[in-house]
Amino acid sequence: MCGIVGVIGKKNATEILIQGLEKLEYRGYDSAGIYVTSNQQQNYLIKSQGRIADLQSKIGKDVEGSIGIGHTRWATHGEPSERNAHPHTSGNDRFVLVHNGVIENFEEIKQEYLQNKQLLGETDTEIVVYLIEYFAEQGLETKEAFKKALSIIEGSYAFALIDSENPEVIYVAKNKSPLLIGLGKDFNVICSDAMAMLQETNRFLEIVDGEMVIVKADEIKIEDEKGNAVYRESYEAQLDLNDIEKGTYPYYMLKEINDQPTVMRRIVKEYTKQNGSVVIEPEIVEKIKASDRVYIIACGTSYNAGWVGKALIEKMAQIPVEVHLSSEFGYNMPLLSKNPFFIFLSQSGETADSRQVLVQTNRLGYPSLTLTNVAGSTLSREADYTLLLLAGPEIAVASTKAYTAQIAVLAIVAKAIGDASGNEQSEKFDIAHELSVIASIMETIIDEKATIDQLVTEYLSDTRNAFYIGRGVDYYVSMEASLKLKEISYIQAEGFAAGELKHGTIALIEKGTPVFGVITDKKTAAHTRGNLKEVESRGAHNFVISLASLSKESDQLVLPDVHSLLTPLVSVVPTQLIAYFATLQRGYDVDKPRNLAKSVTVE
Amino acid sequence: MCGIVGVIGKKNATEILIQGLEKLEYRGYDSAGIYVTSNQQQNYLIKSQGRIADLQSKIGKDVEGSIGIGHTRWATHGEPSERNAHPHTSGNDRFVLVHNGVIENFEEIKQEYLQNKQLLGETDTEIVVYLIEYFAEQGLETKEAFKKALSIIEGSYAFALIDSENPEVIYVAKNKSPLLIGLGKDFNVICSDAMAMLQETNRFLEIVDGEMVIVKADEIKIEDEKGNAVYRESYEAQLDLNDIEKGTYPYYMLKEINDQPTVMRRIVKEYTKQNGSVVIEPEIVEKIKASDRVYIIACGTSYNAGWVGKALIEKMAQIPVEVHLSSEFGYNMPLLSKNPFFIFLSQSGETADSRQVLVQTNRLGYPSLTLTNVAGSTLSREADYTLLLLAGPEIAVASTKAYTAQIAVLAIVAKAIGDASGNEQSEKFDIAHELSVIASIMETIIDEKATIDQLVTEYLSDTRNAFYIGRGVDYYVSMEASLKLKEISYIQAEGFAAGELKHGTIALIEKGTPVFGVITDKKTAAHTRGNLKEVESRGAHNFVISLASLSKESDQLVLPDVHSLLTPLVSVVPTQLIAYFATLQRGYDVDKPRNLAKSVTVE
Repeated sequence: MCGIVGVIGKKNATEILIQGLEKLEYRGYDSAGIYVTSNQQQNYLIKSQGRIADLQSKIGKDVEGSIGIGHTRWATHGEPSERNAHPHTSGNDRFVLVHNGVIENFEEIKQEYLQNKQLLGETDTEIVVYLIEYFAEQGLETKEAFKKALSIIEGSYAFALIDSENPEVIYVAKNKSPLLIGLGKDFNVICSDAMAMLQETNRFLEIVDGEMVIVKADEIKIEDEKGNAVYRESYEAQLDLNDIEKGTYPYYMLKEINDQPTVMRRIVKEYTKQNGSVVIEPEIVEKIKASDRVYIIACGTSYNAGWVGKALIEKMAQIPVEVHLSSEFGYNMPLLSKNPFFIFLSQSGETADSRQVLVQTNRLGYPSLTLTNVAGSTLSREADYTLLLLAGPEIAVASTKAYTAQIAVLAIVAKAIGDASGNEQSEKFDIAHELSVIASIMETIIDEKATIDQLVTEYLSDTRNAFYIGRGVDYYVSMEASLKLKEISYIQAEGFAAGELKHGTIALIEKGTPVFGVITDKKTAAHTRGNLKEVESRGAHNFVISLASLSKESDQLVLPDVHSLLTPLVSVVPTQLIAYFATLQRGYDVDKPRNLAKSVTVE
Repeated sequence: MCGIVGVIGKKNATEILIQGLEKLEYRGYDSAGIYVTSNQQQNYLIKSQGRIADLQSKIGKDVEGSIGIGHTRWATHGEPSERNAHPHTSGNDRFVLVHNGVIENFEEIKQEYLQNKQLLGETDTEIVVYLIEYFAEQGLETKEAFKKALSIIEGSYAFALIDSENPEVIYVAKNKSPLLIGLGKDFNVICSDAMAMLQETNRFLEIVDGEMVIVKADEIKIEDEKGNAVYRESYEAQLDLNDIEKGTYPYYMLKEINDQPTVMRRIVKEYTKQNGSVVIEPEIVEKIKASDRVYIIACGTSYNAGWVGKALIEKMAQIPVEVHLSSEFGYNMPLLSKNPFFIFLSQSGETADSRQVLVQTNRLGYPSLTLTNVAGSTLSREADYTLLLLAGPEIAVASTKAYTAQIAVLAIVAKAIGDASGNEQSEKFDIAHELSVIASIMETIIDEKATIDQLVTEYLSDTRNAFYIGRGVDYYVSMEASLKLKEISYIQAEGFAAGELKHGTIALIEKGTPVFGVITDKKTAAHTRGNLKEVESRGAHNFVISLASLSKESDQLVLPDVHSLLTPLVSVVPTQLIAYFATLQRGYDVDKPRNLAKSVTVE
């Protein structure tokens, strides 16, 4: 993951870098650092373990300059520490480098080129800056030394490099990791995500893998791998700075849970017509209809949403769907059908694990669609088609509204294909109405926050673990609910197919173990209740979340009935709040859980 | 689950029942009980919470008789307690009943028929014996009262009923749960599993769902649902009592881990010829070859073996394979291909979750194959084809040798299809040789027990949790390795796709969290090592199990190289031993973990 910023040609470089890094903190917060200079005489390198706030407290008033680069880190090689924080400098301190990505052949490079160098830290990045220095010492100009290093490096990267002997330039290059250049009047900026530099500009320039860019205050030169100049149009970022503020909410996560009804209504407005029909680019519908099997590729929360998507598409569009973990699919590809169609789910549109799959499916010539929250993101640019989630920026690391938005948009897609195929169930499915009903029910559930807070005290205050169980879509929601609990409260939760628990894992049930049963599916409700009885017999503390029509008096949380195909959109909401309150009660940071980063741009 | 025994016409009924229950303890050990009688004057009902040994200690010398029934319980409704133990008696103590299964409409029955009855316990079974009493009070003969009750009951069951006013008969009936009648000279026995009564007889009679059987000392009458007499041949059980003894091993699990090399050699002997070709019924090969997609249906450890099967079949036979949890597949069936072929994996051949799927696929007319360790088991009888695992009886609840046997037999099947299709990779694959090599390597690994014991002390002595990570087949082994650890040591372990951990669950990594990396796949080795670096950066205590050709000096356990398609057969062995030693060190019962039962015959 990691986030990169840079600026050249503005006097308050320090301030711009820090503001940018704050916006990028979602990409990692193990350590951070900046390098600021204005000429050869005065330059500053400040690094800190921990968050941007920790870094900021170390920056004195004298730290000023007009050129600089900054970095916030999610550790891959080497522990989170000040020593391993970026920017990294070469042995003679001439070169300063920030990096997002993973260098795969760093040990080989060390062996071959850097036997005589004394490296300070344990990171792959340090190797690169030493390698550049090595080639500069051999007599190459900075640009050429950088190019030479790039030709040797294997792996993923976004780099920003400053040569302190000539700080009129920032050298930039990328492969697989995201990087943008923001264009200003007499200044330019660089950033991993447009959000970081929105306060400076809304015009951005894309960089393509393999290119090197020479960024000066008043000029930008792009070169391809062969050294040819490349010309490219800039674009305007469609982001509203207000969306990024959390307003009166104590945490982004709570704001984003609360955003969900609005997001549902926005999806209805954007993707349906007054007459109830759905609006999806006809070409997308035709391509999916023409395929014999849909492959949903995703990670984490998006993967969990993918399973609900499978249920929706199979029921309405009658096309078989497989759901795969990106990191597995890429290196262990199953036998594919003759005419596959790929759907990539990624909130950020930057997930490296998913992107490596997309690169392969593109090479194989298969059609693809990305569902993402970020227009212009890598997965969006590289897939044939994009549908936006319209959830607004999601800042909390633990995803909530992007999950429900993914399900809602997948439902729209499923209906579009179903309608085009004349599927009766699909045609009868008034999705605009159903999603509007759900938006209101979501509000009702969110209004019951206080009840959920209290129940969480009773069930989760001192447990080491917890289970969510359900069958069918309730199983899929159980997977997401337990992931949420793990991510932020650090309670070791597992989501289980209710019938599978007894085949081994039931051994973990002790007196008082919280088991949450999700019951929204009529066909399997009795079976899940049977499985709840089994764990209750072993002492489990059962917590039942059920739909009104399937509820029993003793159930802890009863949700209003909604359309049977869309129950995950309501049943997941209390589980988001359960995770939220469990985390608050344990005193952890809801928005920035340890070890995690929002956008996972390494494999 | 639960196990049932019964005897009629032998003087030492108590002894026979207890010996039988001991053999059935693998089916549950929450509580146990027997009912023994010889005439109307003297009868005994003895029950106990806990294991058969606890029950036995409560049985006085006077407890003698020639007729009796017994039960060992795995609790589904109501906690494990003496009150909820079987046999259950009716209010007036006239009827005595044991039951294996789950009655789904017990609450409705209570409402409709038993409002005036004072029930003692919380079990669904008690309802049934009261219902029989209710109809007897209405004037029906015992047989008719039992039949009437059966017509009302919904769910799964194997019943044995004694009317204490006429103890010359045991009434028996079954639906979905297993039950056999063993035939003797002037006596007969009943049992859930032939193993329980092998010391009395090796001739058994099958009962079909819906039948009622009247068992007397010298006569057996089978009636179908309409009351017509049914005639059926008996069969001889192919089981060796010696196989069931654990000999000099302290635990069955250790014996069974040690059995694995022998099992591999047995599979080679049975399924391959001197010239290296494999021996599988040609019809099975043809049917699978003719299918367009294979569906592997299984639970627990068998499900984990199924994933390795997918890799093998897809690579050698070039037929796409899906692996499904039985409990999910039955009630949430995905869209199937046109010509599916079903493979059921079940050590016992009695897994209820899998059987409900088989019932459905049979109804749909799809061809099926069962891989099981038990000839004549339900899944074997009801599938079109059976291949035996030849692992010998597996007594420890945590499966070891059945897992490796399943993978070896699946590899044989994959090669058979591959060879028949002229697949070059398959034809070059000398499976007899490779499995023989693996048998020897398994021995080497098992010989390193002491090393593993020591490493376990270092890594797992006081951890609350642990992770296994890997990619591809290493991921599949990780799932099995963590299940094993959970089942018996109660350490909350999770098996993860190495690349997926960072998408949320990495939040659980703390200083000292044990993370086991499995690295046997060349293509993904570097990526998994990258993921290990990520968790190491967060303080994880890494334990790497690698293949010699992919190993690094710092790896904790290096395994000899084996054929790339069969690495799970060797990489799983140390993980079995890790679970074994972790459990011993924590002082738990290796063979009989809490809450579990070997053969899961309820859904």
